[in-house]
Formats: sequence, C-alpha cells, structure tokens
Amino acid sequence: MEDVKLIEVKEDVLADNTQAARALRERLRREGTFLLNLMSSPGAGKTSLIERTVSALGGELRVAVLEADIDSTVDTERLLGRGIHAVQLHTGGLCHLDAAMVEQGLCGLDLAAWDLVILENVGNLVCPAEFDTGAARSAAVLSVPEGDDKPLKYPLMFRTVDVVVINKTDYLELADFDRAAFRERVRRLNPRAEVLELSCRTGDGVEAWAGWLRREVAALSRPGV
Amino acid sequence: MEDVKLIEVKEDVLADNTQAARALRERLRREGTFLLNLMSSPGAGKTSLIERTVSALGGELRVAVLEADIDSTVDTERLLGRGIHAVQLHTGGLCHLDAAMVEQGLCGLDLAAWDLVILENVGNLVCPAEFDTGAARSAAVLSVPEGDDKPLKYPLMFRTVDVVVINKTDYLELADFDRAAFRERVRRLNPRAEVLELSCRTGDGVEAWAGWLRREVAALSRPGV
Repeated sequence: MEDVKLIEVKEDVLADNTQAARALRERLRREGTFLLNLMSSPGAGKTSLIERTVSALGGELRVAVLEADIDSTVDTERLLGRGIHAVQLHTGGLCHLDAAMVEQGLCGLDLAAWDLVILENVGNLVCPAEFDTGAARSAAVLSVPEGDDKPLKYPLMFRTVDVVVINKTDYLELADFDRAAFRERVRRLNPRAEVLELSCRTGDGVEAWAGWLRREVAALSRPGV
Repeated sequence: MEDVKLIEVKEDVLADNTQAARALRERLRREGTFLLNLMSSPGAGKTSLIERTVSALGGELRVAVLEADIDSTVDTERLLGRGIHAVQLHTGGLCHLDAAMVEQGLCGLDLAAWDLVILENVGNLVCPAEFDTGAARSAAVLSVPEGDDKPLKYPLMFRTVDVVVINKTDYLELADFDRAAFRERVRRLNPRAEVLELSCRTGDGVEAWAGWLRREVAALSRPGV
C-alpha cells in the first residue's frame, strides 16, 4: 500500500512566500530603498501616521506610499491631495498582503526615485502578521481606544514586528488604557520591539517615531558605519 | 486531450460552509435558540456590548455567550466574573469562525437552557464576513474612533449584516466622525440594515439595541404571530 501523501497547503504557501520575501528584501537593499510594512486594525491611524511621517522626514528622505485596500481608493486620494506620492493596491477581497503582491505594487514605482517606501497593509490585526512582505522593518500601530489587552488576543502581530506604535494618546484621558500593562504584554511576546507613544492628531511623540525610522533607514543604507 | 480540471478551493470551502450553516440555523430554530453573530474590528467593544445586552435582556431571556479568540481567555474570564455564562472557543490562529467551529462551540452549551446565544467572533473586519456561522442574525459593531470611512474599505462586512451598531458615541466630540456620511455609506451597500448608535460606556442607546434584538428573537420564535 502506498504511504499517505499529506499536502500541508498553508505551510507550503507560507514557505514560498518567505522565499519570495527574502529575495525582494535583498533586491530592495541593493537598490537602496527601505520598505516599511505598517500594520494595524482598521481605523488605528495608519494613513494619519504616514502623513505625519512624510511631514517629519520629507525634507531628508524621498518617501512614497503603497496603499493596500480590499476596496476603495480613499486613502490614496487623501495622500495625493496632500502632495504625497501614493500608489493604490487592491487585494480583491484578500485580507493580507504577501511578497508577490508587494512586488506587483512596487512595479508602479520607480524604485531609484525613493529612499523610503511605506506599505500600508490591509487593516487587520490577524492575517497580515502571517506573511513576510519583504519589508526591511515592520510596525504595528495600536490605537488607545482599542484597549491594552490586544497583545493577549493577537499575539502573532506583536511578536513579529520591530516596533509597536501606540497612536491616539490624546484619547488616554477618556479611555481605560493601562500603558504599563500594555508595554509589559508586548515585552513578554517580543522583548526586542520598541514601543513608542504618539498622537497623530496633536503631533505629540511624532518626532521620536521619525527618529526611530531615520536611524533604521540610515543603518540599513550604511551597514558598515 | 482531457479538459482542464479546475478546482476552486475557496468556492468549495465556502459552499460547504454555507450548507453546514443552513443546517445549523435550522437545528437552532427547531430547538428555540436564537444565535447572534457579533463581528467587528479588534477593540470596537463587542464584549462591552455583550455585558450591556445581558443587563438589558437578562431578566427576559436566558443568554449565554460563545467567545471566539485566536488566543487568551481574557474576555471569557471577564464575562464569567460578571455572572454571565460564557464558553471560550480558540481558533488556533484562524482569523474567522465557520459553521463547523460554531457547532463545536455549541457542544459546550446545553442548548435547551438558552434562549439567546451571542457569538463573539474574532476581531476582524475582513474574513469573518465571508463565512456564514449559522446565526439567525449578524451584527457589525463599528466604534467611532475607527472612522466613518470603514464601509468604503470593508464593504463585504457592511453588506452581509442585519444591523450595524455604532459604538463609543461618547467619543463623538473628540473624533472627526460624520454620522450622516457613515449612514449613507452603509445604506448604499445594504439598504435593509438597521443602523443604531450607542455607547457601552454611558449606556446611551443600549435600550434601542435591546429592543431590536428583543423583536428579532420574538419574531423568530413565534414566526406565525
């Protein structure tokens, strides 16, 4: 009798993606473009953070945006309206981005023209964390009204990123959000992740975030320094 | 030459699920248990809405809760601590619930003992909308800080539900949320969906929500009346 042949579809898909993501990351490194993968729940403020980031770094770095959405072009229109170069990616109902989709999106950009490309992933705290996009660094944005328990419920997201941004700190007075408990929950999952607090509405804390990103871009473009 | 054989994996999975969901819905109708599927982004306030709902209806209906999470038992512990009967379902990393998972979860409950079972789906505005859970009615909860543009970006969720609950209306003064624009976006996707506004923090609007649910439960248990 023949042996049972088992096909682990999901594992194979993920393994193929990891390989494609590695190749893309290496290509971007050679071309000198830093790709940042920005993930969060719907409405946590990714687009606002992109606007703030471009304002803070636009004088130093040439920044473009890849906007991923299931549908609509509202975020891309908003960014274009503010003079930010953005390209829309539609996932056709898919809940995440993988490296192949990002590569397709990057075809819409002349890579040599950009030092930093910010990828706004689909608003979803679950699926995007499973797929390496080929980005040099990944960030999770968590907004104060979502609550401090999210690392307990969506651990993979907080485990995989390089930095966690707490946005909407201007809601701290209204919300029942324990910053120390949140930081401790992130630390247990991911001791090396930085946790930064900011408010895209008031601008508080944006400079520290820009500083983190500035350092990461510099370290990658001049690895020997 | 043989014809190309095409296997539409996703469509088959969804078709199988739709069939299982129909059978489950029929079984629940016969047993006299109303299943409500509660969906939202992470942190929109599903658990708080469940607490408010049990307070509002607990005297009239026997209410139990199925809590679905990728990880942790924090919400179930919270509900049990308030004397609400709740069973935890772990999806093992999966981003949604399907009818088979719900059926498994219901095995943890003696159906004859409950008039209303509230299913708290995984916090995700994308994937749960694709899977019929077998529930009699489905609700999407959207919290004010998430923004009024969400129906544009996550249309399937707003297209499939019977009712949309705007939660955290106590944030309306702080947030830039256009209620009329939001309602119009929902109406275009789903003209038959009710849109209710409430605040689980203050209790405002909870009675109207309880009234909607009360009517739906009554209509289903006495279809001839």
